[in-house]
Amino acid sequence: MPRYRLLVEYDGTPYVGWQRQNNGPTVQAALEKAILAFTREKVNVGGSGRTDTGVHALGQVAHVDLTQNWTENKLYLAINAMLKEHGDPVAVLDVKEMPTDWDSRFSAKARHYKYRILNRLPQPTVLANRVWWVRYILDAAAMHEAAQLFVGTHDFTTFRSTQCQSKSPVKSIDHLSVERVGEEIHINASARSFLHNQIRSLAGTLKLVGARQWTLDDVQAAIDAIDRQACGPVA
Amino acid sequence: MPRYRLLVEYDGTPYVGWQRQNNGPTVQAALEKAILAFTREKVNVGGSGRTDTGVHALGQVAHVDLTQNWTENKLYLAINAMLKEHGDPVAVLDVKEMPTDWDSRFSAKARHYKYRILNRLPQPTVLANRVWWVRYILDAAAMHEAAQLFVGTHDFTTFRSTQCQSKSPVKSIDHLSVERVGEEIHINASARSFLHNQIRSLAGTLKLVGARQWTLDDVQAAIDAIDRQACGPVA
Repeated sequence: MPRYRLLVEYDGTPYVGWQRQNNGPTVQAALEKAILAFTREKVNVGGSGRTDTGVHALGQVAHVDLTQNWTENKLYLAINAMLKEHGDPVAVLDVKEMPTDWDSRFSAKARHYKYRILNRLPQPTVLANRVWWVRYILDAAAMHEAAQLFVGTHDFTTFRSTQCQSKSPVKSIDHLSVERVGEEIHINASARSFLHNQIRSLAGTLKLVGARQWTLDDVQAAIDAIDRQACGPVA
Repeated sequence: MPRYRLLVEYDGTPYVGWQRQNNGPTVQAALEKAILAFTREKVNVGGSGRTDTGVHALGQVAHVDLTQNWTENKLYLAINAMLKEHGDPVAVLDVKEMPTDWDSRFSAKARHYKYRILNRLPQPTVLANRVWWVRYILDAAAMHEAAQLFVGTHDFTTFRSTQCQSKSPVKSIDHLSVERVGEEIHINASARSFLHNQIRSLAGTLKLVGARQWTLDDVQAAIDAIDRQACGPVA
């Protein structure tokens, strides 16, 4: 059973997230349907992480085991052809055969997220479904300063969904920066792994700092509370 | 009658272009409807150019005359509120009162277009409706070399729509460059003015060069033909 690594790009707009579920279309199901169409194999595509509804990916790593041997290039051509035929806005940018002990989830060394805020009065047009629109001016420098409180190892109970299935709420954030890029504010986060809703919880809290509704002390108090109720609104 | 300059951004996907017409929604009509909603004035919004179906704008200049005096900021707030309420993916980024002899079309000194090709095998996902997808590899350097044949003053009869209403087919292109940017190829064009379909005609012809179907001599022959039939397929 050869194992293949897939590098996946998708527009998350029509999906309820990565993971297969009953309440709507998912990226995982789209890939499995594409592979079924030309291999006739009902496969499980493992993902490096479970993205939320509406989250887009520029290079998410996944893996799949197939009974038949495919050259990397034939698999690449066939998956992309089927995704297109099915009208799924998903693309496989690279296919690579891997040792069978390699796993897209457990072998991942880092995950990188970019959260984009369009910070201007007029509504998004070309960036619709790509950004969180905040009309009033945010102080990106204050947001960046507050972000540094999250860097390192913390109990992130305040900043994870009550439905989060991770065994421990303790996680390490390696990098969290906030920068203004023209009309946008970008929140860049890197970690070995994240909790469910963690990025959106951090973004929502940082936005309160940017709006001068919360001080650095308020953020620190929310971290220390170790209580989901202490979180700012989720972005 | 004060005259206002509007700096307009839009997602062109749902529109049949800038100019008001009977066969579908237009950006001009969306702006006029938004202004009517709070001024009760049936206005004509003049545009700097008539973009084609599906063309997006990051900063198109337009102008409108109103009978009532509005502060720039009130007009800015009201137009954007109405565009959003009407569900039109159009935003006015800036409003400025201008002398009445200023005209968005005739006072324009330069127009800049970027034509984006996604040059890779997998379909576009996050860039759907934003790029022309060409699956096989294009030679961007050859395209750039061919593009220089168009720079300067030429009779562009070959490269304009048969429906073009411009009195003369003679135009000057100030700048035309082709560059590879990651998986994309960008065609950047600047001129005082363009003919109907000119950019898409040039892009279609340059793509033939990139695909090695046309040589520089073929491009020169098409220019010299001064005949719409000599044009490559329109992008």
